[in-house]
Amino acid sequence: MNFGTVAIVGVGLIGGSVGHALRRRGLARRVVGLGRDTGRLDLARRLGALDAAETDPRRAFGEAEVVVVCTPVGRIADDVGQAARLGPPDLLVTDAGSTKRRIVERVAADARAAAVFVGAHPIAGSERSGVEHARADLFEGSACVLTPTPRTPESATTRAEQFWSALGCRVVRLDADAHDRALALASHLPHALAAALAGSVPTSAHALAAGAFRDGTRVAAADPDLWTQIFLENQAPVLDALDRLSKQLDAFRRLLAGGDAEGLSCWWGEARTRRLAFLEQQAALAASESTSEDPF
Amino acid sequence: MNFGTVAIVGVGLIGGSVGHALRRRGLARRVVGLGRDTGRLDLARRLGALDAAETDPRRAFGEAEVVVVCTPVGRIADDVGQAARLGPPDLLVTDAGSTKRRIVERVAADARAAAVFVGAHPIAGSERSGVEHARADLFEGSACVLTPTPRTPESATTRAEQFWSALGCRVVRLDADAHDRALALASHLPHALAAALAGSVPTSAHALAAGAFRDGTRVAAADPDLWTQIFLENQAPVLDALDRLSKQLDAFRRLLAGGDAEGLSCWWGEARTRRLAFLEQQAALAASESTSEDPF
Repeated sequence: MNFGTVAIVGVGLIGGSVGHALRRRGLARRVVGLGRDTGRLDLARRLGALDAAETDPRRAFGEAEVVVVCTPVGRIADDVGQAARLGPPDLLVTDAGSTKRRIVERVAADARAAAVFVGAHPIAGSERSGVEHARADLFEGSACVLTPTPRTPESATTRAEQFWSALGCRVVRLDADAHDRALALASHLPHALAAALAGSVPTSAHALAAGAFRDGTRVAAADPDLWTQIFLENQAPVLDALDRLSKQLDAFRRLLAGGDAEGLSCWWGEARTRRLAFLEQQAALAASESTSEDPF
Repeated sequence: MNFGTVAIVGVGLIGGSVGHALRRRGLARRVVGLGRDTGRLDLARRLGALDAAETDPRRAFGEAEVVVVCTPVGRIADDVGQAARLGPPDLLVTDAGSTKRRIVERVAADARAAAVFVGAHPIAGSERSGVEHARADLFEGSACVLTPTPRTPESATTRAEQFWSALGCRVVRLDADAHDRALALASHLPHALAAALAGSVPTSAHALAAGAFRDGTRVAAADPDLWTQIFLENQAPVLDALDRLSKQLDAFRRLLAGGDAEGLSCWWGEARTRRLAFLEQQAALAASESTSEDPF
């Protein structure tokens, strides 16, 4: 399988990892990175994530067969529109944005873009940003949600499925709205909580912090502007997720203030059951990955 | 350095790790485990955490030079009292409880116990419990807080310092009340949050969860009864820590509901700064550990 010339818009952690994976797996004839910062683009090329770097969209998109938009979520719809305008007619445009509903809605308002775009969210990443942290194996075993609309050509969706599967993802299709509600709970809430926890603990207590604080605040090191855009793009589902969390914390506070040992143990036990269910599911997915055929 | 006969009360993850570390480092003539479940005690002995197992406190404490109480926090003060009554006059009793103020207060009401007890909290552990997860290196590089009172004999405190240092800990002295307030923030709050997060996310969203949820809920797999006791023992400081967290979450919710990009970025940036300060401090501690003399 070869996707020909692939253009990557935004060559940071995610875009750089797409480039590394394409080149490592021999999936592209040529990987072209498009960005604004020539220093960062040169670094991406030197690190092996790209064959060529461009700052001119016309040159980057003119011969592209696939465009992968890896810019911050607030910019993705515009970048998709530009790729659709400047690229060849049979282009596939996909993205890697952590939110989907508003991006898909904005793209749908542009008929040319809507005809070539399949929204995607490879659920992989790191609290670190920048191409220097990009890795060819970032997507291996990760879920990648595709969010085609009823008007997305099936041929484009199939090609997007092939593309993200080829990078190592387990591809699932989901309505953009359902994606955003699930991700608000599974990712955006944990990120907000990590930052709230980091912000709650004064540095004077750091010397006595151990694993729970270390792991619970890891993603608070992520880029503030990236996460601001994600939260704002997914405002209502994130507010709903916060409500669910508040109910849990209110229950905990009430049980603790009332000295209710049995209630606290039961509250913790329910959370523990959920955590163990998550671990079981992850183990089952890992087992099915390792038995599936993968030439890499 | 050799501490003679060391009795460990409660041979689970922590007690078992104390046993392994003592034996691996040649710090005891004999390591005796005291417990109620002979099957678990036998397992601990077979795994190499103990030289001998006892279910009779008289036999376990009669010849002990050091007793380490590793039972759940709600039971520690009683176990310290029993060891003080049954052990030789020059005994040292220390513990490994995650809370300190109420334990130290209860022990202080018993003159014999108060004369031989030095409260300790080695800040190491795991969401897993049971001697099968115990490790000789669990305490290496961990902080261990000692909470002597003004009436604790200095000789006992010095011996406790030597004991926990010999197991690989970086020992610090702190008032029991200050310990509990710091740990409410650095450990008990992160644990409560992990459970609240695990409890907030339905299993239907698990397939789309990645690193932030995985790491943020890790400690929710811990034992419900152990954590119920810790929260209840440290009720007021944990409620105060929850208030601090609520302020952070309220700020986040207000900024998000108001669509305040600049405010969100600033809120996240402050949390990020705290997280990076924590990482810097951990790195500095690790560097100082690696240059300090340790024969093991």
